[in-house]
Amino acid sequence: VSNSASSPAVLIIHGPNLDLLGGREPEIYGSTSLAQLDAQLRMLGNELGLQVDTTQSNHEGAIIEAVHGVVTAGYGGLVINPGGFTHTSVAIHDALRAVSVPAVEVHLTNLYARESFRHHSMTGAACHGVIMGFGVHSYGLALRHLAPLLCASLSK
Amino acid sequence: VSNSASSPAVLIIHGPNLDLLGGREPEIYGSTSLAQLDAQLRMLGNELGLQVDTTQSNHEGAIIEAVHGVVTAGYGGLVINPGGFTHTSVAIHDALRAVSVPAVEVHLTNLYARESFRHHSMTGAACHGVIMGFGVHSYGLALRHLAPLLCASLSK
Amino acid sequence: VSNSASSPAVLIIHGPNLDLLGGREPEIYGSTSLAQLDAQLRMLGNELGLQVDTTQSNHEGAIIEAVHGVVTAGYGGLVINPGGFTHTSVAIHDALRAVSVPAVEVHLTNLYARESFRHHSMTGAACHGVIMGFGVHSYGLALRHLAPLLCASLSK
Amino acid sequence: VSNSASSPAVLIIHGPNLDLLGGREPEIYGSTSLAQLDAQLRMLGNELGLQVDTTQSNHEGAIIEAVHGVVTAGYGGLVINPGGFTHTSVAIHDALRAVSVPAVEVHLTNLYARESFRHHSMTGAACHGVIMGFGVHSYGLALRHLAPLLCASLSK
Amino acid sequence: VSNSASSPAVLIIHGPNLDLLGGREPEIYGSTSLAQLDAQLRMLGNELGLQVDTTQSNHEGAIIEAVHGVVTAGYGGLVINPGGFTHTSVAIHDALRAVSVPAVEVHLTNLYARESFRHHSMTGAACHGVIMGFGVHSYGLALRHLAPLLCASLSK
Amino acid sequence: VSNSASSPAVLIIHGPNLDLLGGREPEIYGSTSLAQLDAQLRMLGNELGLQVDTTQSNHEGAIIEAVHGVVTAGYGGLVINPGGFTHTSVAIHDALRAVSVPAVEVHLTNLYARESFRHHSMTGAACHGVIMGFGVHSYGLALRHLAPLLCASLSK
Amino acid sequence: VSNSASSPAVLIIHGPNLDLLGGREPEIYGSTSLAQLDAQLRMLGNELGLQVDTTQSNHEGAIIEAVHGVVTAGYGGLVINPGGFTHTSVAIHDALRAVSVPAVEVHLTNLYARESFRHHSMTGAACHGVIMGFGVHSYGLALRHLAPLLCASLSK
Amino acid sequence: VSNSASSPAVLIIHGPNLDLLGGREPEIYGSTSLAQLDAQLRMLGNELGLQVDTTQSNHEGAIIEAVHGVVTAGYGGLVINPGGFTHTSVAIHDALRAVSVPAVEVHLTNLYARESFRHHSMTGAACHGVIMGFGVHSYGLALRHLAPLLCASLSK
Amino acid sequence: VSNSASSPAVLIIHGPNLDLLGGREPEIYGSTSLAQLDAQLRMLGNELGLQVDTTQSNHEGAIIEAVHGVVTAGYGGLVINPGGFTHTSVAIHDALRAVSVPAVEVHLTNLYARESFRHHSMTGAACHGVIMGFGVHSYGLALRHLAPLLCASLSK
Amino acid sequence: VSNSASSPAVLIIHGPNLDLLGGREPEIYGSTSLAQLDAQLRMLGNELGLQVDTTQSNHEGAIIEAVHGVVTAGYGGLVINPGGFTHTSVAIHDALRAVSVPAVEVHLTNLYARESFRHHSMTGAACHGVIMGFGVHSYGLALRHLAPLLCASLSK
Amino acid sequence: VSNSASSPAVLIIHGPNLDLLGGREPEIYGSTSLAQLDAQLRMLGNELGLQVDTTQSNHEGAIIEAVHGVVTAGYGGLVINPGGFTHTSVAIHDALRAVSVPAVEVHLTNLYARESFRHHSMTGAACHGVIMGFGVHSYGLALRHLAPLLCASLSK
Amino acid sequence: VSNSASSPAVLIIHGPNLDLLGGREPEIYGSTSLAQLDAQLRMLGNELGLQVDTTQSNHEGAIIEAVHGVVTAGYGGLVINPGGFTHTSVAIHDALRAVSVPAVEVHLTNLYARESFRHHSMTGAACHGVIMGFGVHSYGLALRHLAPLLCASLSK
Repeated sequence: VSNSASSPAVLIIHGPNLDLLGGREPEIYGSTSLAQLDAQLRMLGNELGLQVDTTQSNHEGAIIEAVHGVVTAGYGGLVINPGGFTHTSVAIHDALRAVSVPAVEVHLTNLYARESFRHHSMTGAACHGVIMGFGVHSYGLALRHLAPLLCASLSK
Repeated sequence: VSNSASSPAVLIIHGPNLDLLGGREPEIYGSTSLAQLDAQLRMLGNELGLQVDTTQSNHEGAIIEAVHGVVTAGYGGLVINPGGFTHTSVAIHDALRAVSVPAVEVHLTNLYARESFRHHSMTGAACHGVIMGFGVHSYGLALRHLAPLLCASLSK
Repeated sequence: VSNSASSPAVLIIHGPNLDLLGGREPEIYGSTSLAQLDAQLRMLGNELGLQVDTTQSNHEGAIIEAVHGVVTAGYGGLVINPGGFTHTSVAIHDALRAVSVPAVEVHLTNLYARESFRHHSMTGAACHGVIMGFGVHSYGLALRHLAPLLCASLSK
Repeated sequence: VSNSASSPAVLIIHGPNLDLLGGREPEIYGSTSLAQLDAQLRMLGNELGLQVDTTQSNHEGAIIEAVHGVVTAGYGGLVINPGGFTHTSVAIHDALRAVSVPAVEVHLTNLYARESFRHHSMTGAACHGVIMGFGVHSYGLALRHLAPLLCASLSK
Repeated sequence: VSNSASSPAVLIIHGPNLDLLGGREPEIYGSTSLAQLDAQLRMLGNELGLQVDTTQSNHEGAIIEAVHGVVTAGYGGLVINPGGFTHTSVAIHDALRAVSVPAVEVHLTNLYARESFRHHSMTGAACHGVIMGFGVHSYGLALRHLAPLLCASLSK
Repeated sequence: VSNSASSPAVLIIHGPNLDLLGGREPEIYGSTSLAQLDAQLRMLGNELGLQVDTTQSNHEGAIIEAVHGVVTAGYGGLVINPGGFTHTSVAIHDALRAVSVPAVEVHLTNLYARESFRHHSMTGAACHGVIMGFGVHSYGLALRHLAPLLCASLSK
Repeated sequence: VSNSASSPAVLIIHGPNLDLLGGREPEIYGSTSLAQLDAQLRMLGNELGLQVDTTQSNHEGAIIEAVHGVVTAGYGGLVINPGGFTHTSVAIHDALRAVSVPAVEVHLTNLYARESFRHHSMTGAACHGVIMGFGVHSYGLALRHLAPLLCASLSK
Repeated sequence: VSNSASSPAVLIIHGPNLDLLGGREPEIYGSTSLAQLDAQLRMLGNELGLQVDTTQSNHEGAIIEAVHGVVTAGYGGLVINPGGFTHTSVAIHDALRAVSVPAVEVHLTNLYARESFRHHSMTGAACHGVIMGFGVHSYGLALRHLAPLLCASLSK
Repeated sequence: VSNSASSPAVLIIHGPNLDLLGGREPEIYGSTSLAQLDAQLRMLGNELGLQVDTTQSNHEGAIIEAVHGVVTAGYGGLVINPGGFTHTSVAIHDALRAVSVPAVEVHLTNLYARESFRHHSMTGAACHGVIMGFGVHSYGLALRHLAPLLCASLSK
Repeated sequence: VSNSASSPAVLIIHGPNLDLLGGREPEIYGSTSLAQLDAQLRMLGNELGLQVDTTQSNHEGAIIEAVHGVVTAGYGGLVINPGGFTHTSVAIHDALRAVSVPAVEVHLTNLYARESFRHHSMTGAACHGVIMGFGVHSYGLALRHLAPLLCASLSK
Repeated sequence: VSNSASSPAVLIIHGPNLDLLGGREPEIYGSTSLAQLDAQLRMLGNELGLQVDTTQSNHEGAIIEAVHGVVTAGYGGLVINPGGFTHTSVAIHDALRAVSVPAVEVHLTNLYARESFRHHSMTGAACHGVIMGFGVHSYGLALRHLAPLLCASLSK
Repeated sequence: VSNSASSPAVLIIHGPNLDLLGGREPEIYGSTSLAQLDAQLRMLGNELGLQVDTTQSNHEGAIIEAVHGVVTAGYGGLVINPGGFTHTSVAIHDALRAVSVPAVEVHLTNLYARESFRHHSMTGAACHGVIMGFGVHSYGLALRHLAPLLCASLSK
């Protein structure tokens, strides 16, 4: 984390298939690309006084390691969209439980309104909270939740 | 809705047992009272350019009727915390599907991290999205999601 | 029951969300309003020699009490559409078992052809029979079933 | 179908064991024989302006073919009591979905009030509606539902 | 609570359909009416040094509020028969967990010996204990459990 | 039934695939052919004073009708091996319940010791008893059970 | 039963691990020893006009035989805490059904509030009623239920 | 086994509650006592050329040991009615698999026609076959199955 | 099989409702008729050096017998589309296991992508392999699989 | 894709453990090595006018990315054997739904005939069709399905 | 425990059917007899500085009491193979939770690789750890785990 | 494997999140770091005459390849802690089945005593045995099991 003097930093982890955002089933997932989304989130971070870094991986192991890295790299908060790993990955669940920074799980779509195999979140059970169904705005809401938390703890 | 000239209005519906907020299992639900929460939400509404009205009921039927009233009273958006009705109420699910304004379900706690009978949301399946686990801030995030949506549609 | 000299009386109980009939998801539930439906049913009652009274409630407790009232008010038969309470309400099930008049459960839609959480009827298990899938005509068929039964027992 | 000039025709298909009607467990299924029931239904058809033909089979394949025949023989509607095939027959379900005439499933008894292996209807999920629990009158109600539908479409 | 000088007070909450007691399925529920039962319980309370108040409702919301009221009205103990709400009401479960007085769940019948949908008690899981199967005597046993508890705590 | 003067008659119904007996998976079902088995059973019938008739069908409908025929043809008892229909056929279950003669279900193999989809017997639930696992001797034991029963009732 | 002239007798059967009472997980089961509990129950029996005998066994078979012995030994009532056998023992269930004296199942803890494998009671389904969650007082309540029943039947 | 010169011996093991036979729920289990049944079976053994020994226990461990003893005591066959242990005892299942003599499981009643918790047989899965539903005759049929088997193997 | 000198023969069995092919839900099943499909398959057989015979039945029993006939009629391979019987027919499963020629199950649609009651294949578990989702080409692929197998074994 | 002038290209993705093909449990999976299989498939592609490329990975993420790459690299079709990921990978399911080229899932073995945890295919639900049970020939059949499709679309 | 001066003592409890070790299904359980195993374990105990006592019972109650006795007899550790009681015995689970010495569950076979009814361990959930699948060596590994623990605590 | 002259070699594979050992939830997993653990295990290997190599990965694919590599690299045994992949990974299960060296699965914690989603082991079903619940000592016990096995086979 090239942590600038005063801003607390947040890492956003995008899971599998989010690299296709904007092109993949746009009627479900919307037409913003991942690069555009990341730019928007960095901008929103600026407004909120947060340094926002993003990463994407289709590899469960890489996501686990990104979660681990949150502590060593000095991030104050974590936003994660585990994509298709949400429903079965005990390993990401364990990784999230192993780090102490506040983590927020986000989903573009409302899991409860989709196929029944998407109703449960194994990974969300290890986060502070879950935000789902608001398209790319789910990420923005997560940042808005973390901003006062991290800024407050910084100013202490 | 005593709808002032320019502000779009949002109704917040608190379900069963939320009248006890602040006193009930504070280690789980926090120590803010419902009156304090409602005041905070009206204030946040002001900042965001939203008129915020709130109501609470322990009666499933009254909640159904509050949902129905959203349309006739001219609310542009809905925030609902169905409490214990979340998990089984097909009737509130049907009411939410029957109204066309955007609805956001919120929970103080992270349903996925509690008893298994709280994992599923029958009512959330009929909302646009669900925000859970951030204590009273779950409500604030819901308003932040609705504000740009409603203000945009107003200015059109 | 303002029971006229010779006509046996039937109470029709509409459950939650049926007050929205005609406006709510018309592609599923049709475009007749509840007031129009009630008028049609009273008229059909006239033809069949039945006094038809109707009531609607979104409150499980009010429906239970309407079922109880059937006996004290002297109704000879009962038609009930318990809406979303159909699938889970043990309390309405118990109320129906507690009264001895013939009860018919009706549904606008075919429960077996919808989401799996609508397949079972807890309340229907306590009725004489169930009629579902014929839109507003489901009610009419219920009256046609009750008419000869009640008129016969009256003339005994 | 020896389709007389003006009457629309309806086929009634009785499934397995209904040939025993009247003799089989009369405390459950009543004491009317199948021949008597068929005569009553033809008579009721007359009243309603419908030509009513009936058939019975204990063979799943014969029932499938009777359903197929509805279209080629020019029947305007279908009433089916699939008996014990109701609960498991995907093949009759598929046959019903393959024909476009309105189909009504009927049962002498209330499935929801019997053994749990009778609660679901695989075949009913492919019909317009289901009527159950009124003994032989279930069939009559089905005809009453179809009569206005078929007569109307005929007069168009 | 018109709390007399020295007697601790207990509230007894009767749930849905208990207003029909004595008339409803007497072979299952017995022939004592609710008024008679309440009188007996007040009398037994007298013997035991308890002020006994009773209330009945068919409304889930009213029961939730009666539970809430226990604290504000100064009752020292609670006896509840949630009737058909026993098996599914997360909202009453939450209400019971929110109040700190000792609560006893009672049932006229033995839930384990009835239909399988009555075997589990969602509400009982939030009470101190459950007494079931002794007809109206289940209530009396609950009072006998509470009496020494409340009298002892009063004399402290 | 060409019922000779004094012998009570028993019908043995072999279900699907039993026509292949002796050739089909002999390590599971043995090497006796169906014709040989039938001859042995008639012979055993002779010894026991029973007229034994046998029939085989791969058609569920034909088996249902054979069960029905037991009464009209004057058989005093029934032995049935419903083969693969054992596990799912509600229709044969219903047929067996509709006839009043004592019925014994037999299986060559021990259902409990095979694949889990063979553990339950829908049809056996409608018989007096079930004998399984003794190869072709299962049939003989069924006859031995019926012989004294039928001879006794004949001599009454 | 060394049945004194006038007192009806009750047998109390303690199941597995209750010999450790007082020492075993006292935060769950309390600190009264079994000997102390038995003494208290005999004393309470004295007050209530009941002769109280007690027995404890960790052997399912011994418990079955104790249940059987109730009849031959002339006990008028039975109180049983089957401990860990509660949830799975069909054999004790059958034993309880085989004897005609009134039986009450008791538990120190509230089964519904513990691990899900303790929610159901196979043995309780064969008793008149179940009392659970009141620590050692559960036994006392059972005696209070039986006393009037047995004394009344004695004086008849 | 006081094995007489020429007769092969069979051990019959009666499980829990069978000591009450004749007195226990006679409408289900019949009115023959266990002593009478054992006498009948010994007599039938005589006819069939078998030495028949019987034992009964309410103790799972004793039944396991009786099964073990079959080999050491030189029994050629085993008949077992495990009573309520049938449905859950993996330990008796293992014991039966550990001995090589042919074992037949018998039940007085038809398990498939009773409560669903009696449908499966854990122990029967480890026997050669199962005979159920014929009252005390189930035992006799088991002996008739074993007789030719054991006599044949003896004469080899 | 009018088995010409050198060509190995394959039987194709079409199950229930396939006689409607081309007319039935063409958006799901395509618009080729069964006669056209059979002609195409015979032609493809010619190309591949296979004699192709086809049969269709809506009767489970007839399908079982067609499977049996494969051996007696000298077919070298079998292609089967069991239609709605796929999911529940233990009897066809048993028939397929009883014949030794290679069998291929085909489906026009992808079972995994349809309603959950179509996901499993009871009959496919007894075949060599399953091909599904390619419309009428599923059959062609099955023939292409069998051709080299049968021609090779013929030339041996 | 080094796409030669006229041939459409197909990518074949081999999932986890297929690198061991030929050596791993050959009695189940056969003795052809992956290199040999790939060579055979390229040759078959040549015959069919298809350019065939192959890739193998034991990494779920790499498979997801190979699926994504299909579009950017200009492949006209996809054949995938997801190995052990078949049954649980929502992420590969999502990847397959995100690309528009026709995809065929293949398996060496018949999933329906193996352990029950292999019966369902999460990934197959997102493919056009599934071919399983024909050993290495499953791949060849997939190519034969794609060839006419891709060549036709090329010549348009 | 004839506890020699310096050695801590461990009790090994063998459950049902282990008395047959060496003779019972040796291809699964091996050919060492229980006496031989016990001798080996005592010898290994010697090497490790542990006094090893062993006991075997086929009686659930006796095993419960052996567990209880661990404390009173002064054993420092416990090794238990509950055999067939592993999967269902809540009573042994409770006994293990009631004693405070470290307990290790062992199994000769790998439970996860056997029938599904053996996958779960009710008793293991109340132990410190479980060792399974190493034949008689599972016991040895358990002793090796306990030795340093007990010797350390002794030397403190 | 830099296989020294005489020592057989064992590979230890640590799965996801084990790189955090010592820091992650130390009250559950202990405070030894992975490097310390690996050093201890190499040292213990020395004592036992085993060369011990270790590897850790958070990537399922890398673990699969490590398992594959066991054979080519000449390891004589395998110890694996698949972490969160234990419960769902069919692919690692398949990899383990594909290699012939003895494999032991280890877990720091007792799976049976944790959340229900950790009770089953998909991967353990493909190992020789499983050791769980002894913290880092689970690994040591696995080595102790392998040592005599591998040394014996070496000296042959």
